[in-house]
Amino acid sequence: MEVYLDNSATTKCFDEVAEVVMRAMTEDYGNPSSMHRKGVEAESYMRQAREILARSLKCKEKEIFFTSGGTESDNLALIGAARANCRAGKKLITTVIEHPAVLNTMAYLEEEGFQVTYLPVDGQGGVRLDALQEAMTEDTILVSVMYVNNEIGSVQPIGEISRMIRQVNPHVLFHVDAVQAYGKYHIRPKRDGIDLLSISGHKIHGPKGIGVLYIHEKAKIKPINYGGGQQQGMRSGTDNVPGIAGIAKASELVYRHMEEDNERLYEWKERLAEGILEIENTYINGPELKEGAPHVLNASFVGIRSEVLLHALEDRGIYVSSGSACASNHPSVSATLKGIGLSKERIDSALRFSLGIFNTREEIDYCIGVLKELVPMLRRYQRR
Amino acid sequence: MEVYLDNSATTKCFDEVAEVVMRAMTEDYGNPSSMHRKGVEAESYMRQAREILARSLKCKEKEIFFTSGGTESDNLALIGAARANCRAGKKLITTVIEHPAVLNTMAYLEEEGFQVTYLPVDGQGGVRLDALQEAMTEDTILVSVMYVNNEIGSVQPIGEISRMIRQVNPHVLFHVDAVQAYGKYHIRPKRDGIDLLSISGHKIHGPKGIGVLYIHEKAKIKPINYGGGQQQGMRSGTDNVPGIAGIAKASELVYRHMEEDNERLYEWKERLAEGILEIENTYINGPELKEGAPHVLNASFVGIRSEVLLHALEDRGIYVSSGSACASNHPSVSATLKGIGLSKERIDSALRFSLGIFNTREEIDYCIGVLKELVPMLRRYQRR
Repeated sequence: MEVYLDNSATTKCFDEVAEVVMRAMTEDYGNPSSMHRKGVEAESYMRQAREILARSLKCKEKEIFFTSGGTESDNLALIGAARANCRAGKKLITTVIEHPAVLNTMAYLEEEGFQVTYLPVDGQGGVRLDALQEAMTEDTILVSVMYVNNEIGSVQPIGEISRMIRQVNPHVLFHVDAVQAYGKYHIRPKRDGIDLLSISGHKIHGPKGIGVLYIHEKAKIKPINYGGGQQQGMRSGTDNVPGIAGIAKASELVYRHMEEDNERLYEWKERLAEGILEIENTYINGPELKEGAPHVLNASFVGIRSEVLLHALEDRGIYVSSGSACASNHPSVSATLKGIGLSKERIDSALRFSLGIFNTREEIDYCIGVLKELVPMLRRYQRR
Repeated sequence: MEVYLDNSATTKCFDEVAEVVMRAMTEDYGNPSSMHRKGVEAESYMRQAREILARSLKCKEKEIFFTSGGTESDNLALIGAARANCRAGKKLITTVIEHPAVLNTMAYLEEEGFQVTYLPVDGQGGVRLDALQEAMTEDTILVSVMYVNNEIGSVQPIGEISRMIRQVNPHVLFHVDAVQAYGKYHIRPKRDGIDLLSISGHKIHGPKGIGVLYIHEKAKIKPINYGGGQQQGMRSGTDNVPGIAGIAKASELVYRHMEEDNERLYEWKERLAEGILEIENTYINGPELKEGAPHVLNASFVGIRSEVLLHALEDRGIYVSSGSACASNHPSVSATLKGIGLSKERIDSALRFSLGIFNTREEIDYCIGVLKELVPMLRRYQRR
């Protein structure tokens, strides 16, 4: 049996997505910047895609920008906002458990002379709002907080954070990395006071190499690449029409049955967690099951190094992750697991199981069975 | 009949490319950064792709970096080189006929405090080497010259330029935008003294949203985006495996029969040029037919505005371009046509016909026939 439980790293494309990508590559292959019919056709793919994305966020179409993925969206949001607003202040705020696309971009901005505050989180991975309150000053220009954490699935109170920062400074820009949240939650930038929101295609069964940045129509932000001036000058380069059509199709499909899908994911996540906890000396890391995102479960199998169990599971056809795949297979200590205060032995033995809508109950049960067999066995080996 | 003569704007994907993209989206969909088999499979797509690309350039695999397209490749090359070498000097050199991805990135670097010299070109679109000689100083850190111009197809003497600049300063980095040249010429960065070379997928019947930057192993260059540290830290973001596999497949295919394909393209280009010149008061813009690239033909139909003829051709199913598609359908005066010293009436009536390997002789003859019918007719209308 093959059980893919690494859906937070990347997902299998929907067949319908692959079809629309295919069509835009081989039939309607025009360049939207061309003035003839082939260009107009391609442009209409983009318009439709913008419509679909805008509907999903209840925002305006002109607020949707396409990038090459979540990382570029985060880079554009942070660098673009910092450069456009540096006269108003140099202070930026984020959290210690952000994705490297945010953390490393913030580190770059520090080199450029900005001051960054990294907010701590509590034991469940929730941002410490008291620390936020303290850090917010009138010369803060940007706050960036992820919606769902990619390693433990903790969910931040985005609306509350937004209200809190705007009480101190109504002009501050609020960026939300929603790469792990989009498709699992109804996200409403206007309602939740979000100015900038990052989305990635391949995390929602869409194509790799495509992402979205929502930019509030009034947000001041500068482009970070230069060229033909596509997308209102915000993101130059020939528009990736197949990718754009693909992410839109994926968006439609993930939101079509979101409630039922989430219910099922929660059921399996609980089932998996219960199964894991039946093995002695195991722990679930992060938020309470129902409070975390439906698809992310992080567990420690104390005494077994993550990589050892990961490869043992792989031999049985089960694919999971140690930490996240985002740090480009150089295993380094997870900022998130450290951030929530886990002990070294729990960090070293942590695995992430990330569920997807293609998983079945049989797969979950198979996974539990294999864990119950492997974990005691590996512990015996490790002791020798 | 439908005749696509806008292959310099974008091309139809090879079916074989679409197939490999499809497979990497729906079957081998892993994240190369994942440590399990699905990740390893995806990583092997990347390794193979690097091999193919490296072989085509006779360079090392570790010198191949994947980006989201030609524009990102140009941005990474120029900004990355400028930032990494700014202590050695602040002088940059390019030409007046570069693609906006180079020209506008240079303009940004000027804002950042670099000084840019824009070299003039001669009437055929060849870089004025005397001007280059004059501009080169010891504190020049970067020279960027395109291989094939996208509007008129002029081809620069890349090897000669490289030797010239290195005589003055052996440490200068030499960037070549080869977006319109790759697949039409055997490009050998080592032989030609190129340090940085940009390639785009969708110009060679590969996918949109994918590009390559060749970086000489000794070239000092800084990344321009931040995140998970993929691709040796040079380009963060989940690797676009389908796109990467796709551009590699396209590379294989365009080089497989390059000589025969080019011969055929030259034959049709000449045929088309002859047909056009049989119409009175028409001109071919740019280099002699055999001296220019095989696929780009620029012609002026004096007295008829480019857009008018473009749309009249479109009504007959013939797709061409006025200027290039790169300036994101805001018609502005072409820097290239101005650069080669064309009169306003020739600029205003210029069309670019860009041939591709899927074109047939029948299509060329059909196009000539339509032009011979339309041009005199439109001139009569315009006179009224």
